[in-house]
Amino acid sequence: MPHKNDKLLLRALRGETLERPPFWFMRQAGRYLPEYRETRAQAGDFLDLCYRPDLAEEVTLQPIRRYGMDAAILFADILLVPQGLGQHVEFRAGEGPVLEPITRNADIPVLDAERLHETLGPVYETVARLSKSLPENVALIGFAGAPWTVATYMVEGGGSKDYPTIKNWAFADPENFQRLIDVVADATALYLKKQIEAGAEAVQLFDTWAMALPPAFHERLVFGPLRRIAEAIHADHPDIPVIGFPRGIGAAYAQAARIRGIAGLSIDWSMDPSWAAEHVQPHLTVQGNLDPRLVVAGGEVMTRAASDILDTLGDGPFIFNLGHGFVPETPPEHVAELAELVKGWRRG
Amino acid sequence: MPHKNDKLLLRALRGETLERPPFWFMRQAGRYLPEYRETRAQAGDFLDLCYRPDLAEEVTLQPIRRYGMDAAILFADILLVPQGLGQHVEFRAGEGPVLEPITRNADIPVLDAERLHETLGPVYETVARLSKSLPENVALIGFAGAPWTVATYMVEGGGSKDYPTIKNWAFADPENFQRLIDVVADATALYLKKQIEAGAEAVQLFDTWAMALPPAFHERLVFGPLRRIAEAIHADHPDIPVIGFPRGIGAAYAQAARIRGIAGLSIDWSMDPSWAAEHVQPHLTVQGNLDPRLVVAGGEVMTRAASDILDTLGDGPFIFNLGHGFVPETPPEHVAELAELVKGWRRG
Repeated sequence: MPHKNDKLLLRALRGETLERPPFWFMRQAGRYLPEYRETRAQAGDFLDLCYRPDLAEEVTLQPIRRYGMDAAILFADILLVPQGLGQHVEFRAGEGPVLEPITRNADIPVLDAERLHETLGPVYETVARLSKSLPENVALIGFAGAPWTVATYMVEGGGSKDYPTIKNWAFADPENFQRLIDVVADATALYLKKQIEAGAEAVQLFDTWAMALPPAFHERLVFGPLRRIAEAIHADHPDIPVIGFPRGIGAAYAQAARIRGIAGLSIDWSMDPSWAAEHVQPHLTVQGNLDPRLVVAGGEVMTRAASDILDTLGDGPFIFNLGHGFVPETPPEHVAELAELVKGWRRG
Repeated sequence: MPHKNDKLLLRALRGETLERPPFWFMRQAGRYLPEYRETRAQAGDFLDLCYRPDLAEEVTLQPIRRYGMDAAILFADILLVPQGLGQHVEFRAGEGPVLEPITRNADIPVLDAERLHETLGPVYETVARLSKSLPENVALIGFAGAPWTVATYMVEGGGSKDYPTIKNWAFADPENFQRLIDVVADATALYLKKQIEAGAEAVQLFDTWAMALPPAFHERLVFGPLRRIAEAIHADHPDIPVIGFPRGIGAAYAQAARIRGIAGLSIDWSMDPSWAAEHVQPHLTVQGNLDPRLVVAGGEVMTRAASDILDTLGDGPFIFNLGHGFVPETPPEHVAELAELVKGWRRG
């Protein structure tokens, strides 16, 4: 039986350049798969699916069975942490998440570790189940939203077009706002440590809306919280790699690549792979970055772009992935073709 | 009387570094101004306002009277060109633009120059009026949407979250799609040349949704069309500077800075000014890039960010501007403070 540290994903995150990189896909479990939609129908709302360990385990495993990725990512949602902080969260069909927004002049939530873990206990159980049921060569990735991104939902009360309320708060009252970011960061660290104790072998922090901030605010609201969470994790679990995904920050990925304690950086599809090879890969493992809309298109335009990413980034520490999650209309057969392409690629 | 080429904006676009840079603001005419809302009420729908030379002239002049910018930008909309190509366009209150979408398997619109100029004639009249009524030191900027951005509306039928239809078309059937881009580019060049003949002294091409494309598609769909339009303009008007604004392309601004025939590049607020000073400004004039949400916040956070941009980019050819247009909730008094700050800045 292979040692768990031999898993391709973990080797890549230790900085090894492999003969062929490991791969997984953001939103690899989800609506584009008919078996997902079947399992989904057994749950009540979307949050119920996240909190049902039997169902969350099943949907996490489904894409692995089909495509044999090198890593599975826990099926959950980034808005479970606000729930663990006591905020009301619901998912309305066709409307997305709706939260009772936290306002600038009201009380900032207090982190109550007991309540947090009680709320999120079913997630830890899902992780524990997965660490037993996954094939032995498949790494298990835990995850959470990064504090800035989670806070956008907490303050705007849901998704947002250009983040008017949170940006005004962050700009006009930075000390007060930092308290919110710190509470979310500390809750996130506790949450991820429990995932690790239940069996997660790496964790990824999704900062999907990092792109909403001008660069002068990256250090305080994006890079700093990421470092804070990584340090808290490594105090207890020094060998667990942390992957950051500050989406859409463009040239500032060169700064993100220098965040202490981060083993991997996921780059979005707006980045030129050759730029990342020059400015990011010398510092840590790069993950990415195929445009998921290219997988909807499929065919030659997809395989050419995927091959270009592999050829450009495969000569250093690298994890093949998308630059953003699969969209629901992705044809499963295109995903199969993409998976075979990566599995068949070898360093030239 | 000063020679028109002495205008600060035109000097900056010729590559001069000035004692204090010229400034104007994207969406400087618009809903944040009470006098705009009054004029707006005299028109029918939003398109009626664009096609009424008396009213469009008035709203173009309003911010100049208040704040004394160094440039006025024609008040119009990027969707007038699709109208000039015969596409049905309307603005529904609270919903934004709605177009009868062009589909991949239907006929691509044919450029009929006579119809185009007949439709857009009132815009040329607005430009002609403005070239007489503007203060003598204020430059007049004409503008249009860049072909990719205009095409997103033409194909998606309005605004879009992630451009599923047009991206699938552009990815899966690139030759056919290129024909649409070329038609829009050629119509745009004709439109801008007429603006120039009516008195526009510089033109800006807004590629607001350039950010929707992976870098492998920039050359064909963003940089190439921009070059094609600039070449068509310069064949007749070699001295008219063209400003490009490929919004949100991040590190690829370094490539955009090398597009032949472009005098200025407008950078969005996601860019670090010092990165632009290093990678863009050596090649051409930089314009930008304050986050308009910082003007909503106002106070020290706004003045500090504006000063940082001026200090970082003011030592080379530079036009102070926003990184995206003003939002309706911008307090006019914050704009006044910002304008005074720029007017009072001097190279150190």
